[in-house]
Order: sequence, then C-alpha cells, then structure tokens
Amino acid sequence: MKCAAFLLALPSLLALPARAAEPPASLAPAVRDTAVLLRDRALAGSKAIDHVRSLTDEVGPRLAGSSGDAAAVAWGLRTLKALGFSNVRAEAVKVPRWERGEESAEVLAPARQRLVLAALGGSVATPEAGVEAELIEADSLDAVAALGERAKGKIVLLGRSTERSPEGAGYGKNVDLRFNGASRASKVGAVGLLLRSIGTNTARFPHTGAMQYEAGVTPIPAAALAIPDYDLLHRLLAAGGPVRVRFRLSCRMLPEADSANVVGEVPGREKPEEVVVLGAHLDSWDLGQGAVDDGAGVATVIEAARLVAALPARARRTLRVVLFANEENGTRGAQGYAAAHAAELPRHVGALEADSGAGRFRRYSYRVGAGGEAFVNAMTALIPGAVEPRAGGGGVDIGPLGAAGVPVFGIGADSSLYFDVHHTADDTLDKIDPKELDTDVAAAAALAYALAESAEPLPRPTPTPAPAPKK
Amino acid sequence: MKCAAFLLALPSLLALPARAAEPPASLAPAVRDTAVLLRDRALAGSKAIDHVRSLTDEVGPRLAGSSGDAAAVAWGLRTLKALGFSNVRAEAVKVPRWERGEESAEVLAPARQRLVLAALGGSVATPEAGVEAELIEADSLDAVAALGERAKGKIVLLGRSTERSPEGAGYGKNVDLRFNGASRASKVGAVGLLLRSIGTNTARFPHTGAMQYEAGVTPIPAAALAIPDYDLLHRLLAAGGPVRVRFRLSCRMLPEADSANVVGEVPGREKPEEVVVLGAHLDSWDLGQGAVDDGAGVATVIEAARLVAALPARARRTLRVVLFANEENGTRGAQGYAAAHAAELPRHVGALEADSGAGRFRRYSYRVGAGGEAFVNAMTALIPGAVEPRAGGGGVDIGPLGAAGVPVFGIGADSSLYFDVHHTADDTLDKIDPKELDTDVAAAAALAYALAESAEPLPRPTPTPAPAPKK
Repeated sequence: MKCAAFLLALPSLLALPARAAEPPASLAPAVRDTAVLLRDRALAGSKAIDHVRSLTDEVGPRLAGSSGDAAAVAWGLRTLKALGFSNVRAEAVKVPRWERGEESAEVLAPARQRLVLAALGGSVATPEAGVEAELIEADSLDAVAALGERAKGKIVLLGRSTERSPEGAGYGKNVDLRFNGASRASKVGAVGLLLRSIGTNTARFPHTGAMQYEAGVTPIPAAALAIPDYDLLHRLLAAGGPVRVRFRLSCRMLPEADSANVVGEVPGREKPEEVVVLGAHLDSWDLGQGAVDDGAGVATVIEAARLVAALPARARRTLRVVLFANEENGTRGAQGYAAAHAAELPRHVGALEADSGAGRFRRYSYRVGAGGEAFVNAMTALIPGAVEPRAGGGGVDIGPLGAAGVPVFGIGADSSLYFDVHHTADDTLDKIDPKELDTDVAAAAALAYALAESAEPLPRPTPTPAPAPKK
Repeated sequence: MKCAAFLLALPSLLALPARAAEPPASLAPAVRDTAVLLRDRALAGSKAIDHVRSLTDEVGPRLAGSSGDAAAVAWGLRTLKALGFSNVRAEAVKVPRWERGEESAEVLAPARQRLVLAALGGSVATPEAGVEAELIEADSLDAVAALGERAKGKIVLLGRSTERSPEGAGYGKNVDLRFNGASRASKVGAVGLLLRSIGTNTARFPHTGAMQYEAGVTPIPAAALAIPDYDLLHRLLAAGGPVRVRFRLSCRMLPEADSANVVGEVPGREKPEEVVVLGAHLDSWDLGQGAVDDGAGVATVIEAARLVAALPARARRTLRVVLFANEENGTRGAQGYAAAHAAELPRHVGALEADSGAGRFRRYSYRVGAGGEAFVNAMTALIPGAVEPRAGGGGVDIGPLGAAGVPVFGIGADSSLYFDVHHTADDTLDKIDPKELDTDVAAAAALAYALAESAEPLPRPTPTPAPAPKK
C-alpha cells in the first residue's frame, strides 16, 4: 500500500467508531423523503394482491419437487420478466420431494367415528392396512419421554393449545412438538404419533408442517389431527376407557428433485455490484393454495422492488428479488443461494424477508452491526402503527446471509390470524385483505430503498453459525 | 246427552268465540310462574351440552341408513331410558340410504389445481374416470335455463353469495339452487353441476345437503365446492379463457334401510292421552359430527322435557320427546310419525321443534288457531331478549302435524353463525356455547310446560296440505 493511499484511507478508518450513533447508520433526509413517497404509493393501493392472485390462480399449491413447484418457478420467471426486472434467472437447487398420498383415520373404540388428519411433512407411511393401537396422551416432549414403557405399542396423542399472538409466539412454543414429537414417541416404543394441530384454528382443518426423525430412531408415522378431532380423543381418554384408533398414511419420500430460486434484479445506478436482497419463498405446503404462506411475501417483495424501480432514478445499489425454493421442508433454496453467492456476500449490504403472512405491518425484526439500530428506529418511525423493532434476525431464508454478516431484516406482519390458515387447506386468496398487505409492501419498499440508496452501508453484524433450519 | 250434562257443557260452548282474546289462549298465572321457574333453571345451567357431547362422542355422524344412524337410535333409546323417560321405544321407519364414497376434483386448464368439493346428498356418481368438461356459469335457476344450447356437454358452475342472517333467510333464498340445480342443468344438456356452497362459511368447507332429480330428467352428478374453490373458478372464467374441470364422485343410492324415530314420554297427570310433542332430528349429514345440526336440538328437547319431569308434580298432559329419523334427506321420520299416530293427532295439543342450531334463543315461530297469538306473545314475554314471534310454522319434522291441525312451534335460535358449520365437516361440539344453548332449553321447557299444563288446549289451526319436504 502507498503512503498517499494510506492517508486517503485514514478518515474512514477514524470514522469507524463514530458510526455507532451517527449517519450513515441513520437515515439521510433525501433518502427518508423518497422512502416516505414509496410508503405512500404502496398505502394508496399497490398491485401486491394481483401478484398473489396470479400465483394462486395460475399455480396454487407448490410443495418442493411437485409439479406445482415447477409451475411456480415458471411463474416466477415469466412474472419477473413481465414486470421488467433485469437478469431474471432460475438458480437451480436440488430439493427433497415428499408426497402426501392418501390419508384417513378413525376412532374404533369406544365408538367408531371418522377423524380428520393430515400427515406431517416428512412422515413415513403406515403399513397399507394402517396403524391400529390404543392411545396414550402427553402434552410436551418431556411428557412423552416420561411415558416410558407405558407407550410401548401405543399411539401417542400429543398436544397442548396454541396461544393466538401477534408475532406467532404461541406457534413458536409448540413447533418442537411437531418437529420432534415422532422421534420422542418412537424412543419410548410408540407405533405412531397423532399431534394436536399447532395452528390456532379450531375449525376442522389439520395443520401440517415439517418434521424430522432423529438419527437412529425407528421412524414412526406422524400426523396432525384437526383440533376438534384431537378434542374428541382427549375427551374420550378423559372418560377413562381405552381409546383405540386406526390411521393410514400413504405418504412417501421420493428421490430429490430439481427446483430453483427465482431471481430478478433492479440494477443499481452507482454501485450495481452491491446488493440488497428482497426475499420470500416460492414453495408452499400442499394442502392450501399458499396464498398467505408465502404468496403474500412473494407479492410483497416483488411489489416493493417494482415500486422502487418505478422511481425516476434507480437506487444507488442493486435490488435483488429472490424467490426461494423449499423453505417449508428443507431450506435448500436458502442454503443454495448462500453457497452460490458466497463470494458476493461481502457486497450484500442488506437482506429483508417477508414470510409472516398478509396481516397489517407490525414491526421490523433485524440483526445489524453495532450502531445500526438508529437506522432501524428511523425506518420504524416512517410506518404508521409500527411498534418498536425487535432484535433477532430476519427470517429462515436469509438466515445464512445474516450468519455470514449481512444485515438482515424481517417484514413482520401482525400474525394474530396467520396461524388460522398457515399450513392448512384454508390458505386461500380470500383470506388476504389487500389493504393490510399494502402496509407490508410499504414497509418493505421503504426499507429496501433506504438500504439501497443510503450513501454508506449499514454496519455489519458479527458472523455466526447459521441457525438450524426449522419451520 | 242428559240435560244436566248439556248445561254443564254450556259454559265451554259459550266460551268458544271468546277464546280468541282471553285465556285459555293466554297464559294462566300459575302456569306462567312454573314456566318462569323452568326458564330460570335452564338459564342457570342445564345438562343440554352433556347430551350433545354424549351424542357427538359416542355416535358422531349419522346419516340415514348408515351404521352411525343405527348407533344413534341405540343412543337415543339408552339415553332416554337412563334419564327416566317412560314408554321409551323405537318406532320403525324405512329410510333412503345414500353413501358418499370417494370424491375429488381438479381444474385442468388454464392450470392444474386441486379443488375441494362434496357431493350433494342424493347425487348420482360420475363415471369411474370422472366427468371432464368446460365450465359454464350461472347465478340462478333461471340463468341455468337461459344457458340453453351453450350448456350442452358442459359442467354448470352455479352460485351466488349467501347472506348471513339471524334466521337463515340467506340460506333459504339459495336452497333451491342446491335442490333443483342439477335438474335444471340437465335439462339444458349439462353433464355435471358444481354448486357454490350455500352456507355462509368462506373457510374451505364444502356444504352438502339434499338435492333431487325431477322426474324424467337425466340425472347428472352434482357437488358443492368450498367457497374459495368456487371463487377460484369464477375468477378463472372472468379472466376469459376456457376453464376445464374434472370431478369424480363415487356416491351411490343403496336399497332402503331400517331406521326409527326414538320416542320417550313424561306421562301427564290428568290427561295422559293428550300429547305435547317435543321434536328434533336424530340423523345428521355425514361430513361433520352433527353437533349443531341437530345434536343441539336433540339436547334441547330432551333437556326441556327432563326439566319439566323434575318438577314436584307432573304436567297435566303427556310430554312426548320424538327424535325424528331422516330429516336431512327424506323426512321419512316425520311422515312415519304422522302416519303411525294419525288417529291420535286430534289429541296432540301442540308440537315444538328445535332445529335451528345452538345459538341464543331468538324467537318462537308458530302456527296456531285464531286467538292463539295471545298465548305465543305471553310466552315470548317470558324469554329475555326474545323478539316478536313469527307466524308460519314450526319446522320440517312437525310439518305434517301442523298440516293436520296441531298447533306447532319452532324454537328459533339466532342462526347468524349456524350456516357457517351446518352441513359441513366443521359441525363439531366445540362450535356450541353451552350458555347460548341453555337459552333454547329455557324457551323449549317453558313452552312445552305451558302447552302441557294450561287448562284448555290452544285453538287449532286449519288443516292444510303438508308443505313439500325440503332441507
């Protein structure tokens, strides 16, 4: 390094400690003004609902590796192209391919009655004739372990109620039951797991989602009961007599399939090599139409980027919409993106993710370097009704980016009603209020623009090991 | 007749014209006081919810002629006996036996996607491979007829929205579409009918119910789509291109089966040969557990009669609980009861029916002879929050009694939420608020007692032809 070059570099080195409390970590007035303009355009009525409608009507369910998944990738490519994005491409990833097949269940004793259930994603099938056994009950993973010998040869009925909450805390508390319940039950000799759906809807919709078998355990079939059906079994057990159930699942894991992250860009005017990622996931569970999870997020990030692109001048940096593959049962899209773009991640100045439904925008979550909070607070102040930002992370699909030191943000919608439809057959277009969805677009557009336009990038968080994928 | 006897009879003959405005058509104070006591006991917390729970948990779905129907008859007999009713018996009737079988549907074009639907009760099956055709749309029976030649070889998509209303008026306006839609579509050459569910729930529950083929028409398969699925097809048609759908039903009509009305009595202390019927229907549709339709009604009439029976003195006349068979798809129970008891109907002083859900009591409906209104008004005044009674009839199962000149009454619950669960898989126990159900018990117990205890029976309405059964 030459001496003159060293001296030129000096001011920015000296400035480093001061970043904590000052701009560029905050929001420059000109950037703020345009962010407000974007917000107001979104709130005046965006096209987000049209994007969801298009995805819902032209594709519908799109579980990783299914024909719907392939149709969704094609939809993503043609939609981003039609909207004028640049460098539109599919970035191939391999994904697990699990298929539901047929499923049925019934109480046999004390009285015969049909039950409504859905296999958990990743479950093995039952034998052709089904699994038939007495039920034994538990309300936590520890309680399953505590059943010990008594669970041998039985079907574990596992459940506790899921609290309705604006940020999905109730769901978060119970997701372990779904993910690990079958392994725990298998360890005590159970032959099957019937889970109380961990959604908040007491209507008769079973709530599916990913589960996994721990290495070494005998895989046992696992399914979620609709809550009224769980309640029935719970009452029958409470009445004292033995309760005998049969259930049949024909689900299966097929060889890995081809899928892709769909990417489209709005190139930056000054620093096109610096990137802001706007992420959401393109795949969905198979029972519904994936309108809310995560059609709403897909529409939010597409529309946010489109609004920024429609400004008279492009933003300083590149906006990159990434529609991730396989968030629901493998996060191969997230892993694939981080791996394929590893060399480029130091030039990723930020990433946001929209995957919390279509409710009214509630708050940003974030993980940024020390001093970046002022920026997040300044952004929050722009969004009517937003509550204070929450430190943590941005979301499952941008988790690997955050772990690599990219500032990450979650577009947090009010999720009070999200888990009524999430992962169920009832995840359909009519469950979205376009005006509420527009508030998420507003929050995403304002944030993406500010990240892409601010003169200096945000301080970067310390790299960490990526969190275990779980959804 | 002796002269003395004639003179003794004179006052009641002279009193006849006066009945219109005076007691006995109104409510004697002592009768009123005991009716109030019964009301208050019910409102303080009745056992009605226990009866529904028992029927739901021990039987569940019980479509006419099914194994559940037989189990329900057994349940009715053992329950009425256990509660201390007298003369508990099954009065045999033959019922139609329609079985649902398997059903599935998908959009094929413009894009492939699964649809959620349920065969209408009474529909013929499709061929094994299903019916596959383009859709053509209509929103009324007249509009179906107006399709003319254009409907030939197509599947008619029939629907319009069902208004939510406290007495089911919205449902009432659309029930013709379900009952007669297939016949109308067949007449213009359609090969299938897909109906927008005529319930009020926009969640993804198809709403089944009875339909019938007019004599002479070619029967075509008919099913109800969940509203989000109807909406999808409606949007696809609105987008302009041809919409191709395939659906498959394996439902079938089997030979008539044995079923029964279940009857139990609380014998009258003075005039045991004079009868007040408390009716509800024991059968249910097959998709749900029949908790609300009509487990709630069954529980209401059982509990109302039980409360009257628990008084220190029995009522003057006999209370007869009748749990009718096959209300949903044939009304053979109603017809069978009226036929079997034809000779006794002149001594039926009144009949009430509970079949409008488990919502808070809203009002009595009635059909009585001239002058009986004062009694109905006096009863209404006893029930907190009740709105003015509605002249008309009492219900489907007691329709033949009303037609034969028996004063009839409907226990009208607020049905604003009833058609969210009615005839769907979501008709489960948890949808009932026990406190609301108790208001219906209060209204039924007070009315049944007053009918059974009043010194003089109500004026009888003019016999009429029975209305066509339809539900």
